[in-house]
Amino acid sequence: MDHGGFTLPGEAGHEALTLRLAERWGADVIRDSDGTQLSPEILHAGHGIYSTICLIREDRAWAAEHSRLLQQNVLMSFPRVAEGEELVIELLEGFSTDQFVVNDWDGTEFWQVFDRTTGTEVLREQWSIGGEAAVETSADTADSADAADAADAATAPGTVRLTGAVPGHSYTVNFLAMRLWEEISMYNHVTNDWGDRPRLMAVEPRHPEVAEHLLAWLEEWCVTHPDTTVVRFTSLFYNFAWFWGSDPDLPHVYADWGSYDFTVNPIALREFNAGREVPITAEDFVNAGRYTSTHNPPSAIYLEWMAFVGAFVRDLGRRCVDVVHRHGKKAYVFYDDSWIGLEPWSPQFGEMGFDGLIKAVFSGYEARLNAGVDVPVHELRLHPYLFPVNLEGAPTFAPGGDPTADAQSYWTVLRRALLRERIDRIGLGGYLSLVEPFEDFQAYIAGVADEHRLIRSLHEAGAPEVAPVRVAVLTAWGALRSWTCSGHLHESPDLSLLHVIESLAGLPFDVRWLSLAEVATDGVPDDVDVLVNAGPAGTAWSGGPAWADPALTTAVTAFVASGGGLIGVQEPAALDRAEAPGRLHRLQLAPVLGVDQDAGDRRVLSRRRFEVHQHHPVLDGVPHALEHVAAVRGTHLVRAGVDVLAVDGAGLPVATATAFGDGRAVFLADHRHGPASARLLENALWWAAGRERSGWTSSAPEVDVAHFPTAGQVLVASSASSVVTTVLRAPSGAERTLVLAPGELLALPVT
Amino acid sequence: MDHGGFTLPGEAGHEALTLRLAERWGADVIRDSDGTQLSPEILHAGHGIYSTICLIREDRAWAAEHSRLLQQNVLMSFPRVAEGEELVIELLEGFSTDQFVVNDWDGTEFWQVFDRTTGTEVLREQWSIGGEAAVETSADTADSADAADAADAATAPGTVRLTGAVPGHSYTVNFLAMRLWEEISMYNHVTNDWGDRPRLMAVEPRHPEVAEHLLAWLEEWCVTHPDTTVVRFTSLFYNFAWFWGSDPDLPHVYADWGSYDFTVNPIALREFNAGREVPITAEDFVNAGRYTSTHNPPSAIYLEWMAFVGAFVRDLGRRCVDVVHRHGKKAYVFYDDSWIGLEPWSPQFGEMGFDGLIKAVFSGYEARLNAGVDVPVHELRLHPYLFPVNLEGAPTFAPGGDPTADAQSYWTVLRRALLRERIDRIGLGGYLSLVEPFEDFQAYIAGVADEHRLIRSLHEAGAPEVAPVRVAVLTAWGALRSWTCSGHLHESPDLSLLHVIESLAGLPFDVRWLSLAEVATDGVPDDVDVLVNAGPAGTAWSGGPAWADPALTTAVTAFVASGGGLIGVQEPAALDRAEAPGRLHRLQLAPVLGVDQDAGDRRVLSRRRFEVHQHHPVLDGVPHALEHVAAVRGTHLVRAGVDVLAVDGAGLPVATATAFGDGRAVFLADHRHGPASARLLENALWWAAGRERSGWTSSAPEVDVAHFPTAGQVLVASSASSVVTTVLRAPSGAERTLVLAPGELLALPVT
Repeated sequence: MDHGGFTLPGEAGHEALTLRLAERWGADVIRDSDGTQLSPEILHAGHGIYSTICLIREDRAWAAEHSRLLQQNVLMSFPRVAEGEELVIELLEGFSTDQFVVNDWDGTEFWQVFDRTTGTEVLREQWSIGGEAAVETSADTADSADAADAADAATAPGTVRLTGAVPGHSYTVNFLAMRLWEEISMYNHVTNDWGDRPRLMAVEPRHPEVAEHLLAWLEEWCVTHPDTTVVRFTSLFYNFAWFWGSDPDLPHVYADWGSYDFTVNPIALREFNAGREVPITAEDFVNAGRYTSTHNPPSAIYLEWMAFVGAFVRDLGRRCVDVVHRHGKKAYVFYDDSWIGLEPWSPQFGEMGFDGLIKAVFSGYEARLNAGVDVPVHELRLHPYLFPVNLEGAPTFAPGGDPTADAQSYWTVLRRALLRERIDRIGLGGYLSLVEPFEDFQAYIAGVADEHRLIRSLHEAGAPEVAPVRVAVLTAWGALRSWTCSGHLHESPDLSLLHVIESLAGLPFDVRWLSLAEVATDGVPDDVDVLVNAGPAGTAWSGGPAWADPALTTAVTAFVASGGGLIGVQEPAALDRAEAPGRLHRLQLAPVLGVDQDAGDRRVLSRRRFEVHQHHPVLDGVPHALEHVAAVRGTHLVRAGVDVLAVDGAGLPVATATAFGDGRAVFLADHRHGPASARLLENALWWAAGRERSGWTSSAPEVDVAHFPTAGQVLVASSASSVVTTVLRAPSGAERTLVLAPGELLALPVT
Repeated sequence: MDHGGFTLPGEAGHEALTLRLAERWGADVIRDSDGTQLSPEILHAGHGIYSTICLIREDRAWAAEHSRLLQQNVLMSFPRVAEGEELVIELLEGFSTDQFVVNDWDGTEFWQVFDRTTGTEVLREQWSIGGEAAVETSADTADSADAADAADAATAPGTVRLTGAVPGHSYTVNFLAMRLWEEISMYNHVTNDWGDRPRLMAVEPRHPEVAEHLLAWLEEWCVTHPDTTVVRFTSLFYNFAWFWGSDPDLPHVYADWGSYDFTVNPIALREFNAGREVPITAEDFVNAGRYTSTHNPPSAIYLEWMAFVGAFVRDLGRRCVDVVHRHGKKAYVFYDDSWIGLEPWSPQFGEMGFDGLIKAVFSGYEARLNAGVDVPVHELRLHPYLFPVNLEGAPTFAPGGDPTADAQSYWTVLRRALLRERIDRIGLGGYLSLVEPFEDFQAYIAGVADEHRLIRSLHEAGAPEVAPVRVAVLTAWGALRSWTCSGHLHESPDLSLLHVIESLAGLPFDVRWLSLAEVATDGVPDDVDVLVNAGPAGTAWSGGPAWADPALTTAVTAFVASGGGLIGVQEPAALDRAEAPGRLHRLQLAPVLGVDQDAGDRRVLSRRRFEVHQHHPVLDGVPHALEHVAAVRGTHLVRAGVDVLAVDGAGLPVATATAFGDGRAVFLADHRHGPASARLLENALWWAAGRERSGWTSSAPEVDVAHFPTAGQVLVASSASSVVTTVLRAPSGAERTLVLAPGELLALPVT
């Protein structure tokens, strides 16, 4: 129990430290990281060896020689207001020219100019691309008088000249840009002040010569790295979207962990459009400057694009895994960075044959995001990353940092999820030498490794008990994007659904994801007890325009009427007024929830009076959990029979509970994960399901309990940073008072 | 100067008090009120006599005998969720049956049933009106098998039975209801506990016999009331909308000061629709339960309906005024209660020939609402009304009330407006006997009357100086609804535009209203210096869907680009995402303002960094005016060159200022009237106009100054409740320090 399941980042030049910590932490595997190497002394010390490979950027020399084979994407130029009828737009103005270069040599047929004041595309005849004039003239083509006219007016490369503009209107250009600097390399480089270290470049594997080169390179790499037992792909081919800016006041422009923006290039566009009646356009990726953010509901054609990219990634990915396997190594893949197209939750993920999946985690839901994927080995890369500063630039392994406190806060929070599902391995990444001065960090990680091995051993004996309430989270993405709202919790700290799933990650329920489209078509499956719809209006999380389909409302209404439970959080099932002509409600499920939210168009309609019910089962044990929740503007009751559980300072309901038909519905204005609010959510799920809380329970909401019947043990875990006293209650009714130290984990035999 | 321009409410049984106060307050006119009479002793004491007449409810006996000639309106039944395919809806469930009765004898062709889950109308064949079965059967009509089928299934009167309902969908019925109790009578009755005093009923003058009766009654009334010098109409024929409920938790359902809901009845509908290609429907008034609230942008057909009602009201109103004039009396009209259809700001208002317009006022803007109308006499009815309680039910002339403090707070605030435009008369209403115990109130009103006469005398000599910045407020209603956002300030305490116009009411600018439609068509007129667009998204105030017309954006953009000023407050020019496909901005004027507001669909786009400019001219003298302003969610800068003047606690901009072309634009997240914020708005108007503040000025924002060149006087008025020291500065640069007592008004000769 004191060895195994732990991956340690080794560092050449620090061999003694590497081997000492491998011993102390029970590491069975040593890995390299971006920026570190493993020396022969480390490689031959008897551990498994992970080697990180980011195929698309590994061979910088080859990429530099093939500079037109780099990856691309669509950019929308920053808007310019026309002063007269002519307007010249500098395409890259505001974007980082370290990152982007205009691709004006291939695929300009995909470029578009938009009048963003009207929202309509400008005719191709009205604009020309800078540099075209020379090209057109030299080619002496006369087959298009319009093109020639436009060319006459064209200006410098990297610009578009528009004629016939409407003064006062704003214009943008959708154009293809090639990327000169791979994003993660750029981030690591800038974060660590790497100065003149080479800037890595990402090649585009849609070019057949690139794909061939990657496979050949990998083959050669395997031959020359006999010590490597696991090739750790970081990840495959396409990073999530990340645009840098040039304006000191706007150094970053856009980033989204789940976006396919970087999969776009002329080859892919042409292949996708071949034979299509309605082609995909640059605007399908630009979306009036919103790009393809995961937070917004995906369009139908974008979902097709994702599937198209997925097929390509799986095909080439399978060939890469085959190379690795042929050399007797295992292939693991990192579920971050260049993960786009992998989609580990898609039913086709297994086709690639990966042996393991590794996820960088801060939170419990990220552990579930990994644990739920059908792959042999699930590994978590814990935080803090062994860098001087964290993702936000705050010090960690540097003066002012407290990496032990960081590690503890992440571990005790994400450990809740490990009680519920098996994680096979944990590990760290970065520069091991940075931990040398931090003895308390070294000691804390030793304890974490032990705790993980203990929890894993119980899972290996048999699965823990699950509560008899089956929960389904209803979003635009459905199961494809289970256990995530894109990115880490600290990146979307205000997103209610992300907090909901963080609470769910440690609760004893069976949880699955359903898409709005499947529920609209097929109804709510019979094996669901409570549906959850949560998030701000208009997002992929609460659903946005999908609720314009009455079949969706009808399906959920029927589900609750016949005994199901519904939990709506923040702006569930919300439509803008323009999306809901002739309808009564902003929240399409208002009749079920008993609550609606007036956007202001019903301000002179009187609001129902109500009393506050402070002793509702949803508040059991956590009477103050709703005290600082802010109401959603215009929240009001739409019928009698709705219990208001709490109000905000202005007297607006922040939580309600009601019966509807044979079912029950709970509305919560917001949810921020924490012990009390997680318990409130748990209460709400039990209540909405029409059941009493059962199984092994803890009176203190800071303490989570998991019963492993096969192992005959109960795990009791405190996520509190102070001592907690709790009453542990068995299903038999037997009670036992426990006092847990901060963050303590206990394994108790079931007698 | 100590007599005249004051209207006192007399009260029979309190003759001595009436005459004593008439002397003390310098009253030249005595009036009756709803619930009081004037005795011969009062009538013959030598004053002018106003008699209040509310024609439509005066002859209760006649109304009771003609119970099918009462006024009507369309109601939408409360929504019911179908459990099966049949659904019976009780039409008046939730509505006050003291107020409403279902009209199922005339105009049922206007009834509609809606599926509010889909927003679509249900086919007429699918529903039947309760009570129809008997009618249809007795008539033995077989010309419509469908109707007969429906009739078979019909149930009790007052219901609608729907077949073929979709389980889980919500349904409502739009139906005509007759009103049994006139709203103001109902309000006064309930407020004053009038017990079994008769409930007055409002007759519908569209019935020719009603119109004839009203005219004959008025003729007779004039004959029998020789002492009356002014007939004070309260008001004409249609009250603003005011629905009562039956549920103790929803005792009021809907009220809107400017709505035409009560002008709807079968005669009017049929007359309006005669010859129309697209008829008006009940849903045009119901608007999915929003009714025709003034806060929402009016539809085109509703504007036509208003014009249609206006023509009727003006015609019959003119005939009423003619009767009064024929008897040698004057005719004044009250600009409240049954004022619908009068529209004193319409160019046709003068056709009726009224001699005076009386407005009940709490605020300065209401004084301007009255003062700006083209009518010989402008009179204000001050508050508090002489009732035991106020409009909110709080005590005034009753234990716990402080009517003097109330009077003082209203007067010093609304007096700002009187500095800018002439008001001819002021007065009170209600039960004079209530003021007897309040000596301080009697004394305060004597001072108010004197102050008013002083201010009026200066206006009579010649108009005060106006600042050289011409302001236009841009709303959906335009000039028709100048100086109002519907109702009193305390009824819409959060409405930014209402606070803006309250500030404007006392500022020295020339102010006019423009409609969004006229600016879209004709552009901004040449004689406007600064445009103001203010209010929440989607309202008639900020404009809502009107901004979908790019011509509007283009016109305002061109105006600013060529040197105009723009002030946008709260959510100016905002469209919902579904209303703005393909566009970049939620605020359509974002390129001009330099600011946009993300509704959440751009959450992963980075925000521009900025510094806060605390020394901008807009903050001159009021550096803390923005301290407690809440930001609008998602507010961010869209370009360089925008000065942020202040931020909220989360760091979001709450005020910005920028140049655009040759003009300037200011954004304010909110505006709440008060001395400092009024000064900030004044600064913003001067700055946006590209001018320095000029004219006579006061350093203290609590002190307003008006220069009357003809009279050779400067009025200096403090609206503060404490002593204020200010520096009065003449255009010459000469300065004088003044110390003003709370609420003090000074008239200083210009030397």
